[in-house]
Amino acid sequence: MSTDEPSHLGRASGIPARPEDAVLDVVADPHPDETYLVRFTCPEFTSLCPITGQPDFAHLVIDYVPDRHLLESKALKLYLHSFRNHGAFHEACTVGIAKRLMAAANPVWLRLGGYWYPRGGIPIDIFYQSGEPPAGLWLPEPGVQPYRGRG
Amino acid sequence: MSTDEPSHLGRASGIPARPEDAVLDVVADPHPDETYLVRFTCPEFTSLCPITGQPDFAHLVIDYVPDRHLLESKALKLYLHSFRNHGAFHEACTVGIAKRLMAAANPVWLRLGGYWYPRGGIPIDIFYQSGEPPAGLWLPEPGVQPYRGRG
Amino acid sequence: MSTDEPSHLGRASGIPARPEDAVLDVVADPHPDETYLVRFTCPEFTSLCPITGQPDFAHLVIDYVPDRHLLESKALKLYLHSFRNHGAFHEACTVGIAKRLMAAANPVWLRLGGYWYPRGGIPIDIFYQSGEPPAGLWLPEPGVQPYRGRG
Amino acid sequence: MSTDEPSHLGRASGIPARPEDAVLDVVADPHPDETYLVRFTCPEFTSLCPITGQPDFAHLVIDYVPDRHLLESKALKLYLHSFRNHGAFHEACTVGIAKRLMAAANPVWLRLGGYWYPRGGIPIDIFYQSGEPPAGLWLPEPGVQPYRGRG
Amino acid sequence: MSTDEPSHLGRASGIPARPEDAVLDVVADPHPDETYLVRFTCPEFTSLCPITGQPDFAHLVIDYVPDRHLLESKALKLYLHSFRNHGAFHEACTVGIAKRLMAAANPVWLRLGGYWYPRGGIPIDIFYQSGEPPAGLWLPEPGVQPYRGRG
Amino acid sequence: MSTDEPSHLGRASGIPARPEDAVLDVVADPHPDETYLVRFTCPEFTSLCPITGQPDFAHLVIDYVPDRHLLESKALKLYLHSFRNHGAFHEACTVGIAKRLMAAANPVWLRLGGYWYPRGGIPIDIFYQSGEPPAGLWLPEPGVQPYRGRG
Amino acid sequence: MSTDEPSHLGRASGIPARPEDAVLDVVADPHPDETYLVRFTCPEFTSLCPITGQPDFAHLVIDYVPDRHLLESKALKLYLHSFRNHGAFHEACTVGIAKRLMAAANPVWLRLGGYWYPRGGIPIDIFYQSGEPPAGLWLPEPGVQPYRGRG
Amino acid sequence: MSTDEPSHLGRASGIPARPEDAVLDVVADPHPDETYLVRFTCPEFTSLCPITGQPDFAHLVIDYVPDRHLLESKALKLYLHSFRNHGAFHEACTVGIAKRLMAAANPVWLRLGGYWYPRGGIPIDIFYQSGEPPAGLWLPEPGVQPYRGRG
Amino acid sequence: MSTDEPSHLGRASGIPARPEDAVLDVVADPHPDETYLVRFTCPEFTSLCPITGQPDFAHLVIDYVPDRHLLESKALKLYLHSFRNHGAFHEACTVGIAKRLMAAANPVWLRLGGYWYPRGGIPIDIFYQSGEPPAGLWLPEPGVQPYRGRG
Amino acid sequence: MSTDEPSHLGRASGIPARPEDAVLDVVADPHPDETYLVRFTCPEFTSLCPITGQPDFAHLVIDYVPDRHLLESKALKLYLHSFRNHGAFHEACTVGIAKRLMAAANPVWLRLGGYWYPRGGIPIDIFYQSGEPPAGLWLPEPGVQPYRGRG
Ligand SMILES: [Ca+2]
Ligand SMILES: [Ca+2]
Ligand SMILES: [Ca+2]
Ligand SMILES: [Ca+2]
Ligand SMILES: [Ca+2]
Ligand SMILES: [Ca+2]
Ligand SMILES: [Ca+2]
Ligand SMILES: [Ca+2]
Ligand SMILES: [Ca+2]
Ligand SMILES: [Ca+2]
Ligand SMILES: [Ca+2]
Ligand SMILES: [Ca+2]
Ligand SMILES: [Ca+2]
Ligand SMILES: [Ca+2]
Ligand SMILES: [Ca+2]
Ligand SMILES: [Ca+2]
Repeated sequence: MSTDEPSHLGRASGIPARPEDAVLDVVADPHPDETYLVRFTCPEFTSLCPITGQPDFAHLVIDYVPDRHLLESKALKLYLHSFRNHGAFHEACTVGIAKRLMAAANPVWLRLGGYWYPRGGIPIDIFYQSGEPPAGLWLPEPGVQPYRGRG
Repeated sequence: MSTDEPSHLGRASGIPARPEDAVLDVVADPHPDETYLVRFTCPEFTSLCPITGQPDFAHLVIDYVPDRHLLESKALKLYLHSFRNHGAFHEACTVGIAKRLMAAANPVWLRLGGYWYPRGGIPIDIFYQSGEPPAGLWLPEPGVQPYRGRG
Repeated sequence: MSTDEPSHLGRASGIPARPEDAVLDVVADPHPDETYLVRFTCPEFTSLCPITGQPDFAHLVIDYVPDRHLLESKALKLYLHSFRNHGAFHEACTVGIAKRLMAAANPVWLRLGGYWYPRGGIPIDIFYQSGEPPAGLWLPEPGVQPYRGRG
Repeated sequence: MSTDEPSHLGRASGIPARPEDAVLDVVADPHPDETYLVRFTCPEFTSLCPITGQPDFAHLVIDYVPDRHLLESKALKLYLHSFRNHGAFHEACTVGIAKRLMAAANPVWLRLGGYWYPRGGIPIDIFYQSGEPPAGLWLPEPGVQPYRGRG
Repeated sequence: MSTDEPSHLGRASGIPARPEDAVLDVVADPHPDETYLVRFTCPEFTSLCPITGQPDFAHLVIDYVPDRHLLESKALKLYLHSFRNHGAFHEACTVGIAKRLMAAANPVWLRLGGYWYPRGGIPIDIFYQSGEPPAGLWLPEPGVQPYRGRG
Repeated sequence: MSTDEPSHLGRASGIPARPEDAVLDVVADPHPDETYLVRFTCPEFTSLCPITGQPDFAHLVIDYVPDRHLLESKALKLYLHSFRNHGAFHEACTVGIAKRLMAAANPVWLRLGGYWYPRGGIPIDIFYQSGEPPAGLWLPEPGVQPYRGRG
Repeated sequence: MSTDEPSHLGRASGIPARPEDAVLDVVADPHPDETYLVRFTCPEFTSLCPITGQPDFAHLVIDYVPDRHLLESKALKLYLHSFRNHGAFHEACTVGIAKRLMAAANPVWLRLGGYWYPRGGIPIDIFYQSGEPPAGLWLPEPGVQPYRGRG
Repeated sequence: MSTDEPSHLGRASGIPARPEDAVLDVVADPHPDETYLVRFTCPEFTSLCPITGQPDFAHLVIDYVPDRHLLESKALKLYLHSFRNHGAFHEACTVGIAKRLMAAANPVWLRLGGYWYPRGGIPIDIFYQSGEPPAGLWLPEPGVQPYRGRG
Repeated sequence: MSTDEPSHLGRASGIPARPEDAVLDVVADPHPDETYLVRFTCPEFTSLCPITGQPDFAHLVIDYVPDRHLLESKALKLYLHSFRNHGAFHEACTVGIAKRLMAAANPVWLRLGGYWYPRGGIPIDIFYQSGEPPAGLWLPEPGVQPYRGRG
Repeated sequence: MSTDEPSHLGRASGIPARPEDAVLDVVADPHPDETYLVRFTCPEFTSLCPITGQPDFAHLVIDYVPDRHLLESKALKLYLHSFRNHGAFHEACTVGIAKRLMAAANPVWLRLGGYWYPRGGIPIDIFYQSGEPPAGLWLPEPGVQPYRGRG
């Protein structure tokens, strides 16, 4: 966790070559005594198929309840872009991102929905959460429209 | 063209084994002096990939202006189902169906939109028509929603 | 054409037993010198299949440009309901209604879209118009959503 | 809290220069013994990025259960407009507005959804509520459509 | 259950002639200690009516919580295609697929929604689940749009 | 209840003259030990207003959990069509259909939503269920779009 | 409460001059032993702003569970129209209508959603219910689309 | 035409008792040499049925190309509200409003779409324009969603 | 016109205090011999009402065909933000922006749609174009959804 | 142009390192005498910003009328993926792809819509076509939904 000096905010930062090179900065939660939800919607995600090397695409929705830190959004963006040349299976990749974000910000709770583009006519969605959501939380569904083929 | 005795209307007919086995009955146009459009929407179409043998699916919209005959809809349904075990490329298959329907009913004009399910992340649509639509025709667009990936 | 004394306006009228029993009243066009469009949207239409006797349903959209008379809407409603026990093929029925309305109101122009509910997995739509629309007419498309199967 | 003489109702009031200058009038709840929800939908909200000074935009949905007072809607509008020249981070700003409204009207319960426009390809939504909603409350979700990128 | 050597991944496999011929490979769950949901959306499903032999079509949504294995998606695809020449009633078929998938992957929990295309004007949907979903699971509704006839 | 010999399956059956004449066949539940939901969506329903004799239309959604029998869908269709010449108030008719279906199939649980077309500018919806849904059931909302007037 | 002789059913009734002049007839619940929901959707509601005298508009959704009586819909319509020349604040008016309907029909439970058209760029919605809904009730959300400004 | 001193702008004006009492102010076109379109969308319109005295509602869309004057929007609003106690048939009323607006602003061109709420199950739309639109005009369709009954 | 050294690209630029202070950089058209359309969609626009000083909001869609220069998008953004403290009537403002953009980039053709948020219940849209679009241009409609009030 | 031996069909091909390395195979048009449209919808496109090196994303829709050759879809996919590490401005990139496809397949006509994800709150769309579409072509609009910010 890196909080004292955000690495990316207000600077020009390149895309990390690999996910493990990315630095996920956090900043202090301005309302640490409140239970509230922060949602990032990330339709710009791409990685590589570990078997064929062909690009995969996904639409991600990240929901979390900050404890003492917020995920800094520019660092988050760079972290997601670091998967650009990274091979990963859908299930492993999606849950792995969630775990990495939890390690970075140590939130009260986090969930991540990964809506992958169809392969072989069948898209895969992954819905992960770190446990039961905390009491007193307002937690709307993302409302992402389902895949429906054609017509 | 087979009009005197419709083959399928009011009977139990099996699926033709191949498209060339299908009989496309027609019936007399009840309003032969009018220029009007008939639209069939066919979301239940499947054929086989001629290279891999894997199933393909498409949503078809058929528009035509009858001259002296109407396409009989049960015969049309059976003809479309005859592609179930037939290998065909998208472009060739779609335009070929249009030509076959024209040969069967000899309409004033016909068009056919084939909206194929995505392969390799990219769906293919084919839009064919037999020529300029006749003057005085009301010809609404099908309004099929576009493919948009996820999100 | 019956205009002097509307048969139904402000009275309790029963459903005509057959389409030919229906009286299609018209009233004077209040703006006879203007070219404008009147649209009736009729999602409550049902008739019988002439072969099986089973009910058919359709959604109708009627557009017309009045000349000297307007179609009286209550009479129109009763006329459409008169198909309740009437057997008719989709193409013949739809174009036939258009012709009957034209005979009743003698409009400058008329068109009728009939969107029939699916049978055998394939719905049929009929788009009829009496000719090229008059110059200077504003004629929006009905915008009826297409049938798309499931999903 | 200012209730005796509403500051803005029926008058021409200018936009407060800063949020802390805004007066949030309240009026007496006409049904103080009932538990019901009031929702304000506010698509016209803008503030400034505290780092770059560039404008930010958000769509806000405010839900609250009045205790003895209602938020006066014209005062609410002026308060929201007071952020026009105010620098604020998304998370801090959204939760801060909620707290200010609670201080003004002392409601039984309040929640606030802030849907911020995308920056860096990733929009941020904040969902705050003051605690568990009261028993017997009808509390529909706002139903705001999600961001989905393009396509 | 076949996990040591996936039968289809990275190979060209033909469509199994019958469902009972299909091999449903599984692979190791990369996050076996997490409770998460995997959703497959399958708009390309077709079988035969056991009475008439005519094709039926369905849109399937499969949700499951892996225990120690994931369903391999290419094997799933081939299994679903094996119904292409198989006669089955909607209710029996849908629940039967769910049971087969459970036998293959032995998941913590599984549910399957089958949305069949209309026959006789009335589509049938089947909603099956293997029991109460596990605690701590994020389980969004599929959000499949309902059938609405025409108009 | 009539199960030994379905009256309509695979035969040409006429519309019963009155609801009380309809025979609601059932067939054996192929998965009698599972708790699952069957949904029929019926946009083709019409009856008569008992006061004016004018046609009424409704969109019905029927959800039930079979015990030992399934409702046979062709018999269901004929039963619904038997209301074509039947006078009935919305509330009485909707709940009455639900009761009749329960008597026919003796399901574990049933619910019926009746969405009636507007009269006097106000549509009426009726939502009936036979009791609390059984534990462990997946029960999605029908998702029927609300009436919204024009615009 | 007026049930013995409905005032409006089958008669031509004028709009009451004021809400307090309206007679809210009820009729006997045809299924008094069942717990079911009746929904009226009323997009045709208008009243006056008590401060400026300018017209206000609202879309109302009324849900109730009848005890021994049903609200007669024509009387309901006339009651709502009686607000046409009546000045009322949004919150007071919406909850007041709910209370009046409860007094008229004495239902087991009632709720009313009032979706008011925007003023000052901010629409107000009011969600009232008379208490916790009864056990065993099927109670779908109205699904009214939210206001979203432009774009 | 009244342009020198707008009657309503910046003042509190009451609703005119009758359409003929309304003053339709205009202001100078700030870009008199350009051909552009101004659209007013007016979902808050109500009048009375001239036969029954019952309220009617409509959604109006007004498009015009100013010549030397713009319609002042507050005056327009008051004019539309003046129909609140006015009896009018749909066709006559809609075209009459268009003519009145043309007399007030003397535009290059004007059109008016009136989308009336359903009566007897059938809504009526009126589409009027003053002639062919001028060359070089950008004239998008209003895109009002069609009435579709229920389901 | 300023092309040699873009003022804003790759730099931190403040919001111009007034529209007339904004510098609208252009860059060389990379395909000067092609006729193509560039569309900017700008949902983040706000100005002030020149009469009341209250904020106004609009959603803008800018379409143009470059001649030898492209509008630089960062400069465009800053120009639009310069209206933040600027008073302007809808019609004058929208057409004025179009003229300013034309002066800056001297395009072959330009059009601008301004969709303003509702005031007094009536939103105003302005559709301006600089003349007939050039031959051979692909010019899709923006497809902005219309305002529809509530419900 | 490479047609004799398609490079990619039925083989495992890696992503070309640069666009200029990609081979765009074509195959013979199976209906060379017909004028028809082929549409590829490509929501999986990403390139790099030439100034910041940050990823850009776009949704592409390609329409063309084959002359004697079809674009082979797997080669198209690989060509589009070759932009993954390529820096390009939106306008130049979009039109450049169109030109490259034309050089590869020498079609009768081609158009390309590029819908880029928002940067700085403003997405850019590019609409290019190679000239007037040929007579007798059916050319539906792509119907891509517009960007609308939030709410
Ligand atoms: Ca905290
Ligand atoms: Ca489909
Ligand atoms: Ca003919
Ligand atoms: Ca006339
Ligand atoms: Ca209270
Ligand atoms: Ca997308
Ligand atoms: Ca596990
Ligand atoms: Ca319908
Ligand atoms: Ca059972
Ligand atoms: Ca009761
Ligand atoms: Ca209470
Ligand atoms: Ca002018
Ligand atoms: Ca140029
Ligand atoms: Ca409305
Ligand atoms: Ca050719
Ligand atoms: Ca918006």
